[in-house]
Amino acid sequence: MKLLKLIPVLFCFVSFSQNSDSIALKKIYNYYLTKSKCYSNLEYLATKIGGRLSGSPQAAQAVIWAKKAMYAAGADTVILQPCMVPHWVRGAKEKCNLTSTKLKLNKPLNCVALGNCVGTGAKGINAQVIEVKSFDELEKLGEAKVKGKIVFYNVFFDQTHIRTGSAYGESVKYRGKGASYAAKYGAVGSIVRSMTSVADDEPHTGNMNYDTSLSKIKVPTLAISYKAADLLSESLKKDADLKLYIETHCQTLPDEPSFNVVGQITGTEKPNEFIIAGGHLDAWDNGQGAHDDGTGIVQCIEILEVYRLLGIKPKHSIRAVAFMNEENGLRGGEAYAKFAKEKNEKHLAALETDAGGFTPRGFGVDTTFGLYNLVSKWHDLFKPYFVERIDKEGGGADLIALEKLGVPCIGFEPDTQRYFDIHHTAVDTFDKVHKRELELGSAAIGALIYLLDKYK
Amino acid sequence: MKLLKLIPVLFCFVSFSQNSDSIALKKIYNYYLTKSKCYSNLEYLATKIGGRLSGSPQAAQAVIWAKKAMYAAGADTVILQPCMVPHWVRGAKEKCNLTSTKLKLNKPLNCVALGNCVGTGAKGINAQVIEVKSFDELEKLGEAKVKGKIVFYNVFFDQTHIRTGSAYGESVKYRGKGASYAAKYGAVGSIVRSMTSVADDEPHTGNMNYDTSLSKIKVPTLAISYKAADLLSESLKKDADLKLYIETHCQTLPDEPSFNVVGQITGTEKPNEFIIAGGHLDAWDNGQGAHDDGTGIVQCIEILEVYRLLGIKPKHSIRAVAFMNEENGLRGGEAYAKFAKEKNEKHLAALETDAGGFTPRGFGVDTTFGLYNLVSKWHDLFKPYFVERIDKEGGGADLIALEKLGVPCIGFEPDTQRYFDIHHTAVDTFDKVHKRELELGSAAIGALIYLLDKYK
Repeated sequence: MKLLKLIPVLFCFVSFSQNSDSIALKKIYNYYLTKSKCYSNLEYLATKIGGRLSGSPQAAQAVIWAKKAMYAAGADTVILQPCMVPHWVRGAKEKCNLTSTKLKLNKPLNCVALGNCVGTGAKGINAQVIEVKSFDELEKLGEAKVKGKIVFYNVFFDQTHIRTGSAYGESVKYRGKGASYAAKYGAVGSIVRSMTSVADDEPHTGNMNYDTSLSKIKVPTLAISYKAADLLSESLKKDADLKLYIETHCQTLPDEPSFNVVGQITGTEKPNEFIIAGGHLDAWDNGQGAHDDGTGIVQCIEILEVYRLLGIKPKHSIRAVAFMNEENGLRGGEAYAKFAKEKNEKHLAALETDAGGFTPRGFGVDTTFGLYNLVSKWHDLFKPYFVERIDKEGGGADLIALEKLGVPCIGFEPDTQRYFDIHHTAVDTFDKVHKRELELGSAAIGALIYLLDKYK
Repeated sequence: MKLLKLIPVLFCFVSFSQNSDSIALKKIYNYYLTKSKCYSNLEYLATKIGGRLSGSPQAAQAVIWAKKAMYAAGADTVILQPCMVPHWVRGAKEKCNLTSTKLKLNKPLNCVALGNCVGTGAKGINAQVIEVKSFDELEKLGEAKVKGKIVFYNVFFDQTHIRTGSAYGESVKYRGKGASYAAKYGAVGSIVRSMTSVADDEPHTGNMNYDTSLSKIKVPTLAISYKAADLLSESLKKDADLKLYIETHCQTLPDEPSFNVVGQITGTEKPNEFIIAGGHLDAWDNGQGAHDDGTGIVQCIEILEVYRLLGIKPKHSIRAVAFMNEENGLRGGEAYAKFAKEKNEKHLAALETDAGGFTPRGFGVDTTFGLYNLVSKWHDLFKPYFVERIDKEGGGADLIALEKLGVPCIGFEPDTQRYFDIHHTAVDTFDKVHKRELELGSAAIGALIYLLDKYK
């Protein structure tokens, strides 16, 4: 390629105050693109600690690491907020095996048990399979066709959505409630096509919940890879009597004590007014939790470093929050809101970054309390950095409880195209994170927090 | 991650004509995201044909393939436009070896000869190295310090640019003219830090030219990887007398006949008025030419397919152009303009896609002849597809000659962050292209061509 001819637009047509903001943003971006520690921090979290599901030894290590990293970044205070978290363990590697005498098939399928799933024990379950595309279809089949079988939810991502998250939003109910719906009609287990937009062989885990209003029986449930789902569906067309063997060794142990880690730079003018940016510290056990949500964690910690290194003193207290237990319980988010309420802390804005460390596209901002009106004024400030979208409404799972207290929330939105290639898989690893993409996302968040502190 | 709460903005606040355009764009995008052949076409071009430098057998195969692919996509006419192209061959694998008795080093460095470079022959060149950061520094050192040595241009990408292409634009002169500048002061060769933003061990080739106004002597020149450049620079600090051995087997053979491949859907109302979209068919020999510029080629071919499958008859003639020889001569671009002029073809707009198959960000549009004013009106149409930027000025290397004839040009701009990780390397391979990112870029281009045909 040759260079595109492009006219620099930075600093054009901006008022005086916007000009001083432009200069500040340029400094912030220059820091992030040349001196940021977020990539090396992520390397440690992802490769030295790795998967860190709530209640695990790795989650406990991550708490200690986050506290240390926050102090190193420049926090004057690091608070450990206690919370009790679920403690689900996978146990020995799960199995899923397809057999068909008619098709001369005896083939292991790439699979992963879903979070909160029960164990089958070593005896496993061997049963026929009934494939459905929806809960409606399952209901129409009814107990007559479902009883004693394994229900296979063969639901594809709708590729016509531009945001991959929209496709995820439509499909994820089969992961979350599929087992109880299946049990309602007498099924002995359920499996789901992995939640992904890419035709590969990686199985994607994620949380599920047994819904006792549907069935009191807890049946085992797994995700199989996209390609395994293709094979199973094709095989079922040729042999409706084929058998699937599933084996899981999962257990739910008693709740464990854990913590949110909250790193603070105390405000010079209004120390009891808070602007926070958070991600979640826990991550699924089958990968390294690099994009989900190691990148969010290191982006938030880096905000503290920027204030320190650029010598900026915030007016309000700025917090980087490493929430615990986003993946399978949201106990950390609830605990944070509880403490905020008890201590009568006034939160001016809360941002969550939990959509991967990809090139930033923009922010979704709550329209309540005027926050959207404020942030949308900064569109021209962000445009030179290719942060184009300031959309209405946003937040994140960890902020739900805070939002209920009336805190205006913001969701950071990176490019979504590659997220569901690796989401909740063994390949959500450090090498999938691009250094500059991560840094640009960090810079966008750092710049937004700077502006919020200045103008709130 | 949990879903961001986002209000759908599609179809909001648009006029009636914009509404009909919105519907058309939705159809076009749905096609690209579910039925497009661009990914499988790219797989063939990149993995079955591979690197295809001008004059090579692979370039000839690519011409035959492109003609066939364009007819298959729905071209009613495919024109082969002849042009003579340079025929440079790399020959046996180049070598670069660092030796230092003082440091006890004898280490091969990852390297690649630059396009158009001369050969050293089997005897190679063994010489001391002088490191510089700029031509100014070289000039100050002068013949006294440079003569008999190999000049090492140790110039980093400026990471503070948001577009990586801007950093490339600043550094690439050391690749292009470094050898002749070095020879001017009596150097026996030159090497350059690879043009990249990533600290890895891949060497990046690219074209160079001997500038006889600087020196009549043609010295060999190579790029070494980022890490090799680090090692060399560090070693020079400890041992200024270390030696580098370089060996190249390149040759420039007589020009070869080749072709642009031009696939056309003839317009129903104004068949002699043209809207074209092009990429370049040639690609460096050391990789597969996947992002550079296989993705551009398949994106252009796909435009024809969309017209056919959606049953749209364009008013003007639409052309997909596979230009030959962008990488080391631009002979194809010149030939296209010459034919256009000779045949008195009126070109309403020419788009080039040659910046990789990454997530689309926007278009750069010529401000001459009012084209920018027209295209910038479509901002709201593209926003739901995350195509945010309609910037002033744009084009591409293959369009330079057409632009001189007064044709308004457009450059397609995808996200630039990962492009220089793979640009002109052995790892510019098919597996580096993300299916949905490629399709979204194709859709953006297809949609723009549709609108241009409708409103020009």
